[in-house]
Amino acid sequence: MALKSFIEVHPDSHFPIQNLPYGVFKPEPASPARPGVAIGDYVLDLSVVASAGLFDGPVLKNNSDSFLQPDLNKFLALGRPAWKEARAMLQKLLSATEPALRDNAALRQKALVPLSKVEMLVPISIGDYTDFFSSMHHAKNCGTIFRGPENPIPANWFHLPIAYHGRASSIVISGTDIVRPRGQGHPAGNSPPYFGPSLKLDFELEMAAVVGPGNELGKPVDVNEAADHIFGLVLMNDWSARDIQAWEYVPLGPFLGKSFGTTVSPWIVTLDALEPFACDAPKQNPPPLPYLAEKISKNYDISLEVQIKPAGQENSSVVTRSNFNHLYWTLTQQLAHHTINGCNLRPGDLLGTGTISGPEPESYGCLLELTWNGQKPLSLNGTTRKFLEDGDEVIFSGYSKGNGYNVGFGTCSGKIIPPP
Amino acid sequence: MALKSFIEVHPDSHFPIQNLPYGVFKPEPASPARPGVAIGDYVLDLSVVASAGLFDGPVLKNNSDSFLQPDLNKFLALGRPAWKEARAMLQKLLSATEPALRDNAALRQKALVPLSKVEMLVPISIGDYTDFFSSMHHAKNCGTIFRGPENPIPANWFHLPIAYHGRASSIVISGTDIVRPRGQGHPAGNSPPYFGPSLKLDFELEMAAVVGPGNELGKPVDVNEAADHIFGLVLMNDWSARDIQAWEYVPLGPFLGKSFGTTVSPWIVTLDALEPFACDAPKQNPPPLPYLAEKISKNYDISLEVQIKPAGQENSSVVTRSNFNHLYWTLTQQLAHHTINGCNLRPGDLLGTGTISGPEPESYGCLLELTWNGQKPLSLNGTTRKFLEDGDEVIFSGYSKGNGYNVGFGTCSGKIIPPP
Ligand SMILES: [Ca+2]
Ligand SMILES: [Ca+2]
Ligand SMILES: [Mg+2]
Ligand SMILES: [Mg+2]
Ligand code: NI
Repeated sequence: MALKSFIEVHPDSHFPIQNLPYGVFKPEPASPARPGVAIGDYVLDLSVVASAGLFDGPVLKNNSDSFLQPDLNKFLALGRPAWKEARAMLQKLLSATEPALRDNAALRQKALVPLSKVEMLVPISIGDYTDFFSSMHHAKNCGTIFRGPENPIPANWFHLPIAYHGRASSIVISGTDIVRPRGQGHPAGNSPPYFGPSLKLDFELEMAAVVGPGNELGKPVDVNEAADHIFGLVLMNDWSARDIQAWEYVPLGPFLGKSFGTTVSPWIVTLDALEPFACDAPKQNPPPLPYLAEKISKNYDISLEVQIKPAGQENSSVVTRSNFNHLYWTLTQQLAHHTINGCNLRPGDLLGTGTISGPEPESYGCLLELTWNGQKPLSLNGTTRKFLEDGDEVIFSGYSKGNGYNVGFGTCSGKIIPPP
Repeated sequence: MALKSFIEVHPDSHFPIQNLPYGVFKPEPASPARPGVAIGDYVLDLSVVASAGLFDGPVLKNNSDSFLQPDLNKFLALGRPAWKEARAMLQKLLSATEPALRDNAALRQKALVPLSKVEMLVPISIGDYTDFFSSMHHAKNCGTIFRGPENPIPANWFHLPIAYHGRASSIVISGTDIVRPRGQGHPAGNSPPYFGPSLKLDFELEMAAVVGPGNELGKPVDVNEAADHIFGLVLMNDWSARDIQAWEYVPLGPFLGKSFGTTVSPWIVTLDALEPFACDAPKQNPPPLPYLAEKISKNYDISLEVQIKPAGQENSSVVTRSNFNHLYWTLTQQLAHHTINGCNLRPGDLLGTGTISGPEPESYGCLLELTWNGQKPLSLNGTTRKFLEDGDEVIFSGYSKGNGYNVGFGTCSGKIIPPP
């Protein structure tokens, strides 16, 4: 019989007892932030659970202050033994057959807060944010658009998971408005650059790994041990201003075209919850160098969808459907590569996958690809889009389909507002 | 008469009463870290000064816990009024004519710690680190080496201060050994990449601005107000593995070629201390776009020098002499550009200038330029170098020469050790 909670969870919910994703929230605007897990339409307040002495396993009983923090970093640093212990305890505590919380009305009242009432926050303190470029379809499409169909994918791409450092300060939680960036663009030819609000504002459909225990400077992580350094995944929108990016990125890479805002979903779904949806990663040819060759090369079957809701419209329109399993480089290869030079990761670091495009045009992960750089406008419920317009709300969602339940990420959304 | 301290300061010292640079130190290995200013051969412990109630000006009397912190971030966030107040108070406290500290043996004993006895730490908590590319000579040399002498400087370079996001986690304090990074390189032609310790390890002579008050996401900083967001400068060595960098950097910029370590000097020299050494920045042609056009365009006359001390040699050899005033883009233009898209800066952010090369070959800021990518080895006291070898210690120093005193940065050094 499937695991079931005493809390009623709709079969379509992203947050059944099989999931238990972690976030940080405020029950009231003036309350301190604290960690929680989502269950059905509720958040279970982990500061209440910890204060009630319910984290009584061998690792967490000495570390229950991990849940009396305004972010998850301390819990992340404890590593997989602590995560497994917390998951087992919380699944038991929330199960239909366990009376400890189910039959304690006072504790339930304090510990379970309706999701509709809470404010969600960025759940981690992010020391460094890195963005990879791991979808071959995305690399190929961008290369074709900018450099033509001959050799669209750079020679290094098949040998290493390419990445750049992103901006940590401007990572915001789902629901935060995004101010259209201003900056320089450059028309074709020899004209001087222009300045103004971006004319090619785009989303990028990504997911991001949240780093658990880090590594010491100078000590790389073995690719076969890299999974122990990954706590879970979030949805991520790497908003991108294509005109700013195109003019600035030679030779040092994207900078202001990306740094004006990056949106993450509030809920971190753990690798443990995603394990039933693990699948083989694509075969890599050429074979990777030994430091990237892993014994088990895993992807996850996570359905992803992007909707756009223009200002004043009642309904949003689906603009793409993709899947995490389209990625060529795995999360563990990304992490091992990141540290092979000795670079140190820290708990709470964020590793974006890069835009997750699939092979079909309906599965491309950004408007640059979907509209082929504005040449083929998308039709959106009576209107059209080449790039994002002011008032557009972009809504990502993602979930894995189990037998009678979903393990989902909820949504990751943001609305474009004009610059002041 | 020149300002003089009751503490004897040698005329060659970098740390006379005219300087008073800020750092963070531990007086004993087990003591908590705390802020200090350098004066002659001593550190003045600001936690002792604060606890003695000596920060009694209008801003700091309510914020004296700024000096009871393990980093300078709280003090940085207070802004220039607090910085000016602290500087005036400390110059008075340390002056030859002021008895408060001079004649209080017990307080002197607690507050003044010999520099030779303390451990210096990275003085700020760095949320984000950005590296610019602001020396035209460096841009021209790199472009010529990699793309040839026709149009060596990319078209965008004269229109915007190009930059990329760097890695914050691997920023270390002067004196920390640097592990030679391993990674992929690529021989010429169509051969597959190789893997191993970097064969082209280099330094980059840079300085970096330390951000004071930040700005809100979505609210750019005006270029004419940007100076109020800069606390001061440090020396910075942006260690670079040229073979790793060359293979990985297309199309997203430098990543593992830079992220294995970046060394900063322990002392932050304030812009207030550097003001007497301000000079005109170079005339910019083409004129910058209005958001980068500033009323006063300032550089600083700071002499910079790099020495290399090979393993087993008694003496180090000077390999280059440059000056901060060779920069084309000013610090304030860099900061204004960084925020023009709405990107938020936070107190303690670090903005590297990029390699500071001057026009003459003896003033180039890295071995890539000095040896022309290994084609012209440098001679070093009986041995030669194309790139850095294991055991090489690289020592930066920098100072501005006043009338009878120096305002200096001390040194910024690191030794290369082989990978484990
Ligand atoms: Ca991206
Ligand atoms: Ca640099
Ligand atoms: Mg972004
Ligand atoms: Mg570096
Ligand atoms: Ni239903």
